[in-house]
Amino acid sequence: MLGTGLIGDFYTGALHAQRSRDRVRVVYSRTDERGSAFSQRWDIPEHTTDLVAAVTHPETDVVVVGIPNHLHVEAVEAAVAAGKAVLVTKPLGRNAEEARLILETVERAGVFGGYLEDLCYTPKALKAMAAVEAGAVGDVTWVRSRETHPGPHSAWFWDGRLTGGGAIIDLGCHCIEVIRGFVGKGNRPVEVMCHTDTLVHPIADEDNAIALIRFESGAIGQFEVSWTFRGGMDLRDEIAGTEGTIWINHFLRTGLEIFTAGGAQGYVAEKAETNAGWLFPLGDELSELGFVDMFTDMFDAMEAGREPRETLYDGYIVNAVMDACYRSAKSRAWEPVETFEWRGSETPRIGTAPEMVDGKVVIKRELLPDGRQRLIVKDPGTGDFADLIVVAGD
Amino acid sequence: MLGTGLIGDFYTGALHAQRSRDRVRVVYSRTDERGSAFSQRWDIPEHTTDLVAAVTHPETDVVVVGIPNHLHVEAVEAAVAAGKAVLVTKPLGRNAEEARLILETVERAGVFGGYLEDLCYTPKALKAMAAVEAGAVGDVTWVRSRETHPGPHSAWFWDGRLTGGGAIIDLGCHCIEVIRGFVGKGNRPVEVMCHTDTLVHPIADEDNAIALIRFESGAIGQFEVSWTFRGGMDLRDEIAGTEGTIWINHFLRTGLEIFTAGGAQGYVAEKAETNAGWLFPLGDELSELGFVDMFTDMFDAMEAGREPRETLYDGYIVNAVMDACYRSAKSRAWEPVETFEWRGSETPRIGTAPEMVDGKVVIKRELLPDGRQRLIVKDPGTGDFADLIVVAGD
Amino acid sequence: MLGTGLIGDFYTGALHAQRSRDRVRVVYSRTDERGSAFSQRWDIPEHTTDLVAAVTHPETDVVVVGIPNHLHVEAVEAAVAAGKAVLVTKPLGRNAEEARLILETVERAGVFGGYLEDLCYTPKALKAMAAVEAGAVGDVTWVRSRETHPGPHSAWFWDGRLTGGGAIIDLGCHCIEVIRGFVGKGNRPVEVMCHTDTLVHPIADEDNAIALIRFESGAIGQFEVSWTFRGGMDLRDEIAGTEGTIWINHFLRTGLEIFTAGGAQGYVAEKAETNAGWLFPLGDELSELGFVDMFTDMFDAMEAGREPRETLYDGYIVNAVMDACYRSAKSRAWEPVETFEWRGSETPRIGTAPEMVDGKVVIKRELLPDGRQRLIVKDPGTGDFADLIVVAGD
Amino acid sequence: MLGTGLIGDFYTGALHAQRSRDRVRVVYSRTDERGSAFSQRWDIPEHTTDLVAAVTHPETDVVVVGIPNHLHVEAVEAAVAAGKAVLVTKPLGRNAEEARLILETVERAGVFGGYLEDLCYTPKALKAMAAVEAGAVGDVTWVRSRETHPGPHSAWFWDGRLTGGGAIIDLGCHCIEVIRGFVGKGNRPVEVMCHTDTLVHPIADEDNAIALIRFESGAIGQFEVSWTFRGGMDLRDEIAGTEGTIWINHFLRTGLEIFTAGGAQGYVAEKAETNAGWLFPLGDELSELGFVDMFTDMFDAMEAGREPRETLYDGYIVNAVMDACYRSAKSRAWEPVETFEWRGSETPRIGTAPEMVDGKVVIKRELLPDGRQRLIVKDPGTGDFADLIVVAGD
Repeated sequence: MLGTGLIGDFYTGALHAQRSRDRVRVVYSRTDERGSAFSQRWDIPEHTTDLVAAVTHPETDVVVVGIPNHLHVEAVEAAVAAGKAVLVTKPLGRNAEEARLILETVERAGVFGGYLEDLCYTPKALKAMAAVEAGAVGDVTWVRSRETHPGPHSAWFWDGRLTGGGAIIDLGCHCIEVIRGFVGKGNRPVEVMCHTDTLVHPIADEDNAIALIRFESGAIGQFEVSWTFRGGMDLRDEIAGTEGTIWINHFLRTGLEIFTAGGAQGYVAEKAETNAGWLFPLGDELSELGFVDMFTDMFDAMEAGREPRETLYDGYIVNAVMDACYRSAKSRAWEPVETFEWRGSETPRIGTAPEMVDGKVVIKRELLPDGRQRLIVKDPGTGDFADLIVVAGD
Repeated sequence: MLGTGLIGDFYTGALHAQRSRDRVRVVYSRTDERGSAFSQRWDIPEHTTDLVAAVTHPETDVVVVGIPNHLHVEAVEAAVAAGKAVLVTKPLGRNAEEARLILETVERAGVFGGYLEDLCYTPKALKAMAAVEAGAVGDVTWVRSRETHPGPHSAWFWDGRLTGGGAIIDLGCHCIEVIRGFVGKGNRPVEVMCHTDTLVHPIADEDNAIALIRFESGAIGQFEVSWTFRGGMDLRDEIAGTEGTIWINHFLRTGLEIFTAGGAQGYVAEKAETNAGWLFPLGDELSELGFVDMFTDMFDAMEAGREPRETLYDGYIVNAVMDACYRSAKSRAWEPVETFEWRGSETPRIGTAPEMVDGKVVIKRELLPDGRQRLIVKDPGTGDFADLIVVAGD
Repeated sequence: MLGTGLIGDFYTGALHAQRSRDRVRVVYSRTDERGSAFSQRWDIPEHTTDLVAAVTHPETDVVVVGIPNHLHVEAVEAAVAAGKAVLVTKPLGRNAEEARLILETVERAGVFGGYLEDLCYTPKALKAMAAVEAGAVGDVTWVRSRETHPGPHSAWFWDGRLTGGGAIIDLGCHCIEVIRGFVGKGNRPVEVMCHTDTLVHPIADEDNAIALIRFESGAIGQFEVSWTFRGGMDLRDEIAGTEGTIWINHFLRTGLEIFTAGGAQGYVAEKAETNAGWLFPLGDELSELGFVDMFTDMFDAMEAGREPRETLYDGYIVNAVMDACYRSAKSRAWEPVETFEWRGSETPRIGTAPEMVDGKVVIKRELLPDGRQRLIVKDPGTGDFADLIVVAGD
Repeated sequence: MLGTGLIGDFYTGALHAQRSRDRVRVVYSRTDERGSAFSQRWDIPEHTTDLVAAVTHPETDVVVVGIPNHLHVEAVEAAVAAGKAVLVTKPLGRNAEEARLILETVERAGVFGGYLEDLCYTPKALKAMAAVEAGAVGDVTWVRSRETHPGPHSAWFWDGRLTGGGAIIDLGCHCIEVIRGFVGKGNRPVEVMCHTDTLVHPIADEDNAIALIRFESGAIGQFEVSWTFRGGMDLRDEIAGTEGTIWINHFLRTGLEIFTAGGAQGYVAEKAETNAGWLFPLGDELSELGFVDMFTDMFDAMEAGREPRETLYDGYIVNAVMDACYRSAKSRAWEPVETFEWRGSETPRIGTAPEMVDGKVVIKRELLPDGRQRLIVKDPGTGDFADLIVVAGD
């Protein structure tokens, strides 16, 4: 385990969760103090401030990279040099160039690699993606993915020199990959329109952004990220399809609601901004935010000799989309998503041949209270529209 | 009352609601059959197919224009010629040019005019706007307004020649004015970025669109409209501010939830797509969708000799923003909102001087479980970020 | 208007709401100071501390009794003596004896009377009751009605000598009548089991209670009332039927959610216990809590010469049920509901002849993923149960 | 693993979940066909129809009893005879006598025993119980636990001769133990009032029941169970305390909402009654319903030589409470909970000395919009109540 920040805690918590057979054996931290505290907190046999020592440790089978973005390339190179499997936290790199370097380093060495994108592994996302694949919503037309909170907990997240950007690089990477999971990973992201602004915090990078991603099928991915949201963590996905709709709420309204007058000294729900009033905690954050299923897939894939659901190539595509976002925010225009190689398929345009009734194009069918249906039809010759009432079945 | 469609029903229902002292006296319809049915349904003394006869009727004090968009100019000119007050449904015109014509016709004549934008008058919107004005969310940074459903009930809505466009002209006009209500009507809409597509229905106009409106303060208005949403009517507003958040759900989750196995013949909840399963009806649609409060404001304003909350000028601005949306969707770039005259004020940029502690810029404060606070601070010289733990109050 | 407390404000707000043609002309208060403030607040021409003067005032057509429970009998007698119509707030009396006295006083005089039970008139309740009547949930089997908050705002509510009890007399009266609205008013309440306790407040009367009401059809009404609930006002109804379910949430989750960091001086949402954090206000309390529809029905009924939905006899039945509750809480056993006269009908027991398949009683049908159905059947001879898989339609 | 029904699937799914180190080695089924299918489905090395062979198998360390209620005693005796640890599904026995027999059999033999009550181990329940223990809601005054659905999937559940009762024995056992978890397990259940009825299904046992459990502290546990609920599975807990409130929704509104027009052949969400319309599936049922955390606690406890959170004694108490429920339903009166031994503590009555201001008892404090507080006070001499406005802090 490389890294002892919040993400290190989440990862180790998930790796050790329940009756897991996996264990963190060595933890690397840049300071001895934090490494020591972390290894005690999680009952880890060894800790070190020497990254190479950690990855070459004989009991290390897999290197989990959970350190700041600007250190990913170096850490991956060290792990690969030691011949170890490597799992890298999000975002893969500070930009597509770094991500490609990581991808190619791992692929050239032939070691197992995985992209630690937990939000594609939440039980709700997995269930919803299965429903989409089963056809429950028809063709996906639009996916909105939103992640907003009042800003990161650690100082380095705010320094664009170390991270590669602001709220997009921190949160947008999640949203982009969630969107890809719903529109289909083989569905090529063609171009991007993005708006960014720094509305509240006195920083150089964006604290708010929205972007549209146009996929080859015509489907739109829309992501919204913010470091200025008030009220906790707002983490929602909304999927629209030709035959259905899916709404996922990961955080603020999940069926656990606590009102407290605040008498409990020191009791603060995680991610809440207050210690009194209505609070909306998660039941089991590690499971509900996807960390547990993510590591299960990674280790099962490694043992089975297959690819994980989230590959380093996926991480590279996410960086490529984010690069396009930053270009678009600057040019204020749609920008193409540029990739050195497209490994997906070609995806036909959404939509089917229109239904015809009596030589008219059917625009819409509606159920009436008496059981009949109202059709709105268009005369293809004149372009005129009209109503048509039919008994159901016609 | 000009018009006997769904909107005519809503308007008359609201005008006659509860113990109202107001009554519709004459209704105009293009066909005698519908005029007759409508006047019976609502107990209206007279109906006619002669628009001029309706507006010049001696008992007509106020002309309510609820007919298709392409007939607004003509109807308003007739009403004004008769010296009557005139209330016009949304959108005011098919474009800003028509809207300006209506506005100037009414203003030149000096009669009372009002813009019938019901969604700015919903009890939830009024309460939320009051909360914003009281400072409950600080400075508004972002407003998302969303209106989506499976497509309009009447044929003419689908004909862009008659309406001026597709889902934007039908639904976007609501969203734009709701957004203005939250960012402040004096806050100038500067420019617009819009994406439209026709993803499902075999029509020439857009059935899906999203737009960003940048206001002078830096606040962003984001609207999402669709004629392809499945599951009923999704009508939500989300307001983000520097000190708070507001979420409004007008339709699908308002505290009335019915599961029915479907045994009730002919029982279908309005706007639902099914007659079995979980349904989410409104309690009192006329009140909750704003129609009642809207007419109260219009008539009270007229009697008091003041302007209503929603003026014809507001309707004109909405058309001007929609014109910019259509230009942007074509140019695929940000387009300025062009108005012949700006009646609002100048609005300073959101944001205040950053807080300083020990010569460092404070980026964020967080409450820790032990009651202390963690500060994330930035050194203005080096640009480096660091953590700082302080006891509360420091 | 007799009374200038919170209920007087609600009633007058509703009577004057929107474009109402009705107006309060005279208000009676026990103190001149409150009468004066009230009449200014609501723009009422006259106020007085002389109850008889108020009811006999020539412009008084209807007397609205909104004063404490122990004064209802006297107020009604004065109104009836003056030959005026009389509308009485809930509960009708401190007990069934007082309620019967009021009922008989009004009926003997032949004046119009109505029972001001607002929660049976909420738009959600009206819509839900219509759905039940249309058969959307089949036979009603169980109704849970719950009203809880941290305790009343006015001192006299806490004095059982003046009110007739505690949380039951204050809140249970609402629940009982809501339950009757769903199980059917002709469905006789046969017996009651009630538990009360004083868990938090240092008072002599109950601050928590639950009761079961068994109706002639076998349906159960369950009410829960509390003066010790934390987090605002919890006002929910849940209706179970053989073919469906209805959930009504009147207060805390109705689609308007505000998070505020609390910067707004003096801004407190009504019924909220805090002025920061997540708040859940109503859009239009007067409408959503039923006051507007209630007075519309009362005045329309009076003008049409028909009975209102909520009659004084209904108020009497509610008191009779509450009397049985208090008896049951003391005896710790089921107690019969005693009425001097039953004006409803006889209601047969819920339930139909069981479905038979191949000589077996069908207990349950379930839809399987493959479209077939699983039947659970019982052999009427042996009493043994078994599974049976059939294709749908069989 | 004894048993191959739905519960066997849940248990095995949880035991094998994620990266678990535990595995089912032998499964016992009463029929070879089901044993074979089950062992294939879960990749279990051996299956048998010989219960003794299963429990004495050399690789069996722990016997999980997941067979019908009337077979528990026999299965536990076999497991104990083989000297194996034994985990028993809910309810422990068909009545307290059987439960005591199981408890004493295990304790006499000195083997490890555990009570498989999954709903006390849901992540939400664990988080909520921790919040209660931290004082977030003050003293617990009332706990409502509700489990209702349209009736069990397997035939034997409907046969009271095999189960010991109806909906109470099936579902009430969950609710009772959840309630104990919130009021405190050391808090003695003193007496019970219960109402049962058979409203819909043609069976001899109850398909609906409600019960009140009075605990020594004065807290009330209220459970509601039904086999006639329509709309899916309604599984909610509501905890009221002197300083707060907790609402837990385990099933129908947990942040995953799917609308489907039904085009997906064969796609049915578990527990849903329809295959179209709005569906509310769980993300990860095994985790969210507590099965994963339950087995983690059981195995960790066994390895650590400590008691699990849910002991066989807890199972015995649950049976004792259910026995009292059935007695009460018959006698229609409160019935004492009879236990052969109480292993909990003595719990003082809820409540503290009342707050006094100026010789008056303070009944309630309210925050006013202007920041002041309104106190409702009682004169202990006269019993009269009055208002008092004070500035905050007084």
